[in-house]
Amino acid sequence: MIKDVTRFVPPYILSRCAYSPGYQPANHKDLIKLNTNENPFPPSPTVSDAVQNEISNLHLYPEPYSQKLRDLIASKHSLSEEQVIIGNGSDDLLNLCVRAFADTNRMVGMLEPSYSLYPTLTSLQRSKVSKVEFLNDEFKLPVEEITKSGVNLFFLTNPHAPSGRYFDQESVFSIASEINAILVVDEAYADFSIENSIPLLDKANNLVITRTLSKSYSLAGSRVGFAISSPEIISILDSVREVYNLDRMSQAAAFAALSDVHYFEDCRRKILEEREKAYTFFTQLGWRTIESHANFILTEPINATGQVGKKSASSLFNYLEKNNIHVRYFHNHRLTESKIRISIGTERQMNALYQTINKWCNEES
Amino acid sequence: MIKDVTRFVPPYILSRCAYSPGYQPANHKDLIKLNTNENPFPPSPTVSDAVQNEISNLHLYPEPYSQKLRDLIASKHSLSEEQVIIGNGSDDLLNLCVRAFADTNRMVGMLEPSYSLYPTLTSLQRSKVSKVEFLNDEFKLPVEEITKSGVNLFFLTNPHAPSGRYFDQESVFSIASEINAILVVDEAYADFSIENSIPLLDKANNLVITRTLSKSYSLAGSRVGFAISSPEIISILDSVREVYNLDRMSQAAAFAALSDVHYFEDCRRKILEEREKAYTFFTQLGWRTIESHANFILTEPINATGQVGKKSASSLFNYLEKNNIHVRYFHNHRLTESKIRISIGTERQMNALYQTINKWCNEES
Repeated sequence: MIKDVTRFVPPYILSRCAYSPGYQPANHKDLIKLNTNENPFPPSPTVSDAVQNEISNLHLYPEPYSQKLRDLIASKHSLSEEQVIIGNGSDDLLNLCVRAFADTNRMVGMLEPSYSLYPTLTSLQRSKVSKVEFLNDEFKLPVEEITKSGVNLFFLTNPHAPSGRYFDQESVFSIASEINAILVVDEAYADFSIENSIPLLDKANNLVITRTLSKSYSLAGSRVGFAISSPEIISILDSVREVYNLDRMSQAAAFAALSDVHYFEDCRRKILEEREKAYTFFTQLGWRTIESHANFILTEPINATGQVGKKSASSLFNYLEKNNIHVRYFHNHRLTESKIRISIGTERQMNALYQTINKWCNEES
Repeated sequence: MIKDVTRFVPPYILSRCAYSPGYQPANHKDLIKLNTNENPFPPSPTVSDAVQNEISNLHLYPEPYSQKLRDLIASKHSLSEEQVIIGNGSDDLLNLCVRAFADTNRMVGMLEPSYSLYPTLTSLQRSKVSKVEFLNDEFKLPVEEITKSGVNLFFLTNPHAPSGRYFDQESVFSIASEINAILVVDEAYADFSIENSIPLLDKANNLVITRTLSKSYSLAGSRVGFAISSPEIISILDSVREVYNLDRMSQAAAFAALSDVHYFEDCRRKILEEREKAYTFFTQLGWRTIESHANFILTEPINATGQVGKKSASSLFNYLEKNNIHVRYFHNHRLTESKIRISIGTERQMNALYQTINKWCNEES
């Protein structure tokens, strides 16, 4: 009996758009991958043994609370372990926030542009989206517009992607205090910034901070994130969490990576150095470039005939791609259509990028 | 500003019950763990190298479609790769089914008793649950009651847990044909059965079969499952799936385990042998025991004074626990309250179980 199975699917599911990630090649050889903000360095050398120790126990379910990770993260940030929850990537935690705090009557807010997963998760929950525009094309934070957005849940990406802009603690606190909602500060890139929102947790119990080990801990391939908040909120998020959301190997890898502070600091330092050099390179070209607090940089290319705009940005994007250098181009927003976003790679990768960009500057018009 | 954060949480979230898994000890030493249907054998020896090869690439995101796994599973079952989707455990896939096919207007049906995760996922989606009772205490399948249940999505656990009962292909086909809904056949235990529903896929495109590598492939700790169905349904499930739902290490572990057919067959054979011996042991004690098609067995203990019932079952459960043998007891349903469910372990584990049960039979009244 062949049926029209679409009649079992609600129309809002059929019509929604799934999240589309940056290009992930099956093979990374001969490719400079600066498009999805991965760390260019492999994870801590301690990860290998930690994972290996789990293999002989893989027939047994993982510990369902990732308790050792909660304890470690709590102690790292001087929090109680009741303030920590672990996710299968921070995407898992963003999804839990939507499931717990949004529905057809409870709206979700976010900056526009920001992480395109937020509206995807929101539409799956049948919740309405309120997109709050920046105050100017330098990504100035619209504090008042956010607090008055009338949502039940707001996602504030800080440091912001794709701009790299950092919003100061005072602004974040004023949003948390004024907004009549749960405020999620998505701190995926906070380890590359000068400040974060953790000190605000004591003063604002409607605040949820999400973090990922994908960027600063070189574990994008292992899918581990965490959220920290008030114990009340963590307990609600736990109640909507999949019980075995994090497998044994990822728990072990994350524990090892978080414990190796020296390696973490070393990789971070190298990335910050390369980010500084990138900023210098682009500003010396005369390209308008935002000072980044993340592991990527957003810059506005000027082509050989002195033009900026969609044409220049897409020309550079394509030129780099032809030369096996992958960066990210968000053509669908006024604030990004003339720019490209480049993840900070190794010194070798960045030098190859600069050479190719110099060639483009001379060749393309 | 300390707020009452519960006012941002919908009442149906605050009042629902989270899924409660079987006891997962942090340390498995000196413990005979027969409570959550894990495979007693470690995974294929090929898993170790496969995982190790991924470590140096853990800073890169995983391949978002788990394409190599889709291809392998498709070829194993003579399907097209468009008929396969991979999940972070089959729980992930069950959740995707609820998100795609259920909502406040679209009910979810399931057998009672069956997997207690189904109602948990359903309540999170604010969908109504229709629990269909068995026709008798031998777990006879209520085909007509299922087809007339008026749901949009039905979960049929086959082989059934916690009974171990197998429902034949003809009955499953008649449900798939007659029901005006998506039929999910949860085949977590199918590798221990004599038959499965895969041959029905050609004839019923409203059929979704979910599988897990947790049981027969010894990968409970790695969280990998898959679903097979019509390409239309797979594409809908993909549209609600988290993009990076399976990490690199689990993709590699699953690929290695699925490829090592010899090891798989060897472990399965040993488990089937032990299951046969367990059936003989319990029936020789005179205990009513269901012939199992899964890697566990449900039996009704008779105590020293010849009694069956809640008291006997809970007495044996506690006695085993005191002796460091963990089994499962579902006290909250008429069909299970007088029985205990025992996962099939190694020969050594099962012999220790039998000895302890023999002692209980003589001691307890």
